[in-house]
Amino acid sequence: MIHDKTLQIAVIGGDLRQAHLANLLARDGFYVSALCLEQDVYLGDDVKQGEDVQNVLSRSDVIVLPLPVTVDKKNINTPFSKQKLAVRDVLTYAKKDVLLLGGMPDPELRTKCEQMGLTMIDYLEREELAVLNAIPTAEGAIAIAMGERASTIYGSTCILTGYGRISKVLSRLLLNMGARVIIAARKPSDLAWIRINGCEGIHISKIKDYADQADILFNTVPAMILDEEILSCLSRDCLVIDLASKPGGVDFDMAKNLRIKTIWALSLPGKVAPISAGAMIKETITNILTERGIIY
Amino acid sequence: MIHDKTLQIAVIGGDLRQAHLANLLARDGFYVSALCLEQDVYLGDDVKQGEDVQNVLSRSDVIVLPLPVTVDKKNINTPFSKQKLAVRDVLTYAKKDVLLLGGMPDPELRTKCEQMGLTMIDYLEREELAVLNAIPTAEGAIAIAMGERASTIYGSTCILTGYGRISKVLSRLLLNMGARVIIAARKPSDLAWIRINGCEGIHISKIKDYADQADILFNTVPAMILDEEILSCLSRDCLVIDLASKPGGVDFDMAKNLRIKTIWALSLPGKVAPISAGAMIKETITNILTERGIIY
Amino acid sequence: MIHDKTLQIAVIGGDLRQAHLANLLARDGFYVSALCLEQDVYLGDDVKQGEDVQNVLSRSDVIVLPLPVTVDKKNINTPFSKQKLAVRDVLTYAKKDVLLLGGMPDPELRTKCEQMGLTMIDYLEREELAVLNAIPTAEGAIAIAMGERASTIYGSTCILTGYGRISKVLSRLLLNMGARVIIAARKPSDLAWIRINGCEGIHISKIKDYADQADILFNTVPAMILDEEILSCLSRDCLVIDLASKPGGVDFDMAKNLRIKTIWALSLPGKVAPISAGAMIKETITNILTERGIIY
Amino acid sequence: MIHDKTLQIAVIGGDLRQAHLANLLARDGFYVSALCLEQDVYLGDDVKQGEDVQNVLSRSDVIVLPLPVTVDKKNINTPFSKQKLAVRDVLTYAKKDVLLLGGMPDPELRTKCEQMGLTMIDYLEREELAVLNAIPTAEGAIAIAMGERASTIYGSTCILTGYGRISKVLSRLLLNMGARVIIAARKPSDLAWIRINGCEGIHISKIKDYADQADILFNTVPAMILDEEILSCLSRDCLVIDLASKPGGVDFDMAKNLRIKTIWALSLPGKVAPISAGAMIKETITNILTERGIIY
Repeated sequence: MIHDKTLQIAVIGGDLRQAHLANLLARDGFYVSALCLEQDVYLGDDVKQGEDVQNVLSRSDVIVLPLPVTVDKKNINTPFSKQKLAVRDVLTYAKKDVLLLGGMPDPELRTKCEQMGLTMIDYLEREELAVLNAIPTAEGAIAIAMGERASTIYGSTCILTGYGRISKVLSRLLLNMGARVIIAARKPSDLAWIRINGCEGIHISKIKDYADQADILFNTVPAMILDEEILSCLSRDCLVIDLASKPGGVDFDMAKNLRIKTIWALSLPGKVAPISAGAMIKETITNILTERGIIY
Repeated sequence: MIHDKTLQIAVIGGDLRQAHLANLLARDGFYVSALCLEQDVYLGDDVKQGEDVQNVLSRSDVIVLPLPVTVDKKNINTPFSKQKLAVRDVLTYAKKDVLLLGGMPDPELRTKCEQMGLTMIDYLEREELAVLNAIPTAEGAIAIAMGERASTIYGSTCILTGYGRISKVLSRLLLNMGARVIIAARKPSDLAWIRINGCEGIHISKIKDYADQADILFNTVPAMILDEEILSCLSRDCLVIDLASKPGGVDFDMAKNLRIKTIWALSLPGKVAPISAGAMIKETITNILTERGIIY
Repeated sequence: MIHDKTLQIAVIGGDLRQAHLANLLARDGFYVSALCLEQDVYLGDDVKQGEDVQNVLSRSDVIVLPLPVTVDKKNINTPFSKQKLAVRDVLTYAKKDVLLLGGMPDPELRTKCEQMGLTMIDYLEREELAVLNAIPTAEGAIAIAMGERASTIYGSTCILTGYGRISKVLSRLLLNMGARVIIAARKPSDLAWIRINGCEGIHISKIKDYADQADILFNTVPAMILDEEILSCLSRDCLVIDLASKPGGVDFDMAKNLRIKTIWALSLPGKVAPISAGAMIKETITNILTERGIIY
Repeated sequence: MIHDKTLQIAVIGGDLRQAHLANLLARDGFYVSALCLEQDVYLGDDVKQGEDVQNVLSRSDVIVLPLPVTVDKKNINTPFSKQKLAVRDVLTYAKKDVLLLGGMPDPELRTKCEQMGLTMIDYLEREELAVLNAIPTAEGAIAIAMGERASTIYGSTCILTGYGRISKVLSRLLLNMGARVIIAARKPSDLAWIRINGCEGIHISKIKDYADQADILFNTVPAMILDEEILSCLSRDCLVIDLASKPGGVDFDMAKNLRIKTIWALSLPGKVAPISAGAMIKETITNILTERGIIY
């Protein structure tokens, strides 16, 4: 990749992912400044630190905000820093033609950017990042299953709901580990792919008929699928792992009543593999910059 | 699958696929009559044969026409029969509420059906059949590569263009056989999937840079991709297999000039695995009948 | 499997593996009595408990001792029981034609059995059990790697020493998860298999040349292979997991000096997957009984 | 690999494998002369041709004879040449300290070499070559199955006898193509490996019970296993492929009587992938030279 080495990038706040992202961008030869990332993170020598915030913001061509950008809608999310940095300050100090990149900026923030004529892109909406995130999610799900159970994945029967990105990656891992993998989906073409990929495909309306065979049940659908009817069919030893973002897909209260062990595993990439997650964000950002002609 | 065993199905014309389809439908318990399928095909005892054509057509609830329905727009395509059956006769004799199923009915025929109030469905437009057809296509492509080359697939370098259904299935087979697999695609998310699936992803604009490494080049994109510029980069020993339907994606004249061996492999499912192809059509038809509430 | 349902089997001491073994033998229809297995284990209703020890021992056709049989050479190893049972008592009360099965009976005990005319078989010496044990060992090694690192297995570079059972199973899992897998072995035929199986094979004398690329280094050879010379080539972030039984294959002191994180993972099957490990012992015992004509 | 570039190697007779072997050795920088290889083969410019036979033989440090060395015990096997070269002449003209490498030299020839104080090594006895040869054998077997059947490998049920090198490679290919793979073996540890590798393992004494499910039956055991009893259980559509060297493992007469299609596929590597087979011999010869300290 050839690019303008004079491009100035500010990487602000966030966690280990953001720190690793800064290191990788610097390794690519960009002029990278890190802000609000001074505690318990490793930053390479080629990442500039301790500079004046206003100075950095006002000269940067690209500003990479964390994931999520903010949790209180007021300050940038800076869990690895003692400093506070107001969102409004970032917008105010930034150059007019800056490119703002952030993870899940809230609608309010997006509106404010528009009003100020600033370009804000949510890198989490990029399809390739969603695809890549399926890897640490799937590995994390398997780590949970290994840690919670007294049996091997090999020889176990796993039921997965849905056949989206996570289910595609997770089912292949499980299959390759020697599990029997049953996937509940709806579309005939998904059921065809499931079978081609070596798993058993069942229509989602038939989960109940297979539920008692499950050693592990992974939900990937963000809708109430695992309700009382299905939960009550599960074996007492079955482990339920919900990988769906809110509102999740399991009736947790009912599961508790039925004494079925249930784990709601959210945001696995940042938790189990922040280094890899940082590399994935870096790749996505590189794609964005390339598509916009900023690097080439 | 529960269904009305009194459902009458006529299976007409076509080749080994159609014959196997008739056998499978009969094995499921339907009342199946075969027409224009009397030469060099095996039909089980439970498939009715030799009945009066008009009689069969006028009583059938479902009429399965071949793939393609017709080649001359006048008669049904009946390569395994000495009989001729005019398309117009089928439409005339059929019950008013019949369900006509056919492969690639031409626009003219579709219009005629509409005018006559008959329902005609092209089962080849079903996504699950397109998915399933990728299997015999991929196997057939590998059989060609094996037959044409003096080396194993193992250890070879294969370049594939595109990442649609055929490319997905074929690349996995090649990878599992020990080939190095490079896939040229365009979308960042496709490139992410390609890498996750163990292959090397390159942007389609970069094929030229990798072309000289290819032992086999499989095209799956129905657009002129393998033009003079790319073909002239190939090794003299490289085998080019074009799997794209018309107009194909290879400049065949140029390939000939450059003495590069090129094979345009069309319609592989019916050629290399008619039995399996028949089973796939049968599954698709079953899905159609189920969705329409005809069987349940 | 057909067998004499009147066969009486005593299952004594041990841990969760032994308890699960008792359950599985009972599920097969044998008359199973459990001794010294009353705390924190689940035993099914069809496993007899609380019987008189002498009575059980004197009537049993087969006595299954734990793994290991004893840790102090005096008493049977009964970690899930408050009772003590002397090894000598077992030998004294047992029928003359009993079949004693145990895991790693010490030489002294074997000699004593011989003197008393009793048949003692070490099921851990069975090749199929060693093969099967490679599964929980490999899964456990991956669980450790996942837990200790901030990156995914996908995309990591793993070096394995040796190409025995554990390395064969582990390398395939890692490869299927998307790691680059380098295996150091000695025999040309092993190096051929390694390559056929999709990994990179290097002669064990060349580890040093590859060591700096390793994100994870798994040792499976019970000999000092990872000495100062090799350890000092590793990246500071590399994780070393030693899966070799005593004396292990890593210079742990040197690793500590070099600040390289090293984990000596012993006896993983019983720790990470006792249920599965019990099932594997059960299968092995069934093979032994079949070969000896006790069941058929 | 570092070696003495002045090493002189004569490559004599044989087929496309031998020609490719000569090319590869020359590409590695050795001084390579080809004899009796002048028809319908491609030899690179760096392979010396047309030299005086006696001259080449008398100066060569290593002489590579074909596979097999001879078919009539008198002359070297030279199917791609009009010349004749007596075995005795090779032995007579060769340097005293020459290293003779040949494929399957007959006992008589080996004795003669010993008497003359010449070192003759049969490279076909090398385990790594036997392992590598399993690849073209397995691919060739699949090509045959694809060519003979009207169904895909995907979805088929394959039974394999034995779990040696060919069966290990072939079963993995079939499994990865989506076949159900049943392997009949004898040793409990082989049955454990078979299951770990994703196939179904059955004791070889039980083939009869599974035979009627087979779409394809591959024999890899060179002993009469597929006798009348088993053949008569096969479906009429089952294809039998015998991959075992003489005497094979199928009662061919009985198979004919029962109208079961049977193919005895011998020497597949040289037939289906001579280029790859040549590369494998080259690798094996390189190993031999390295182990003997001739190259290093």
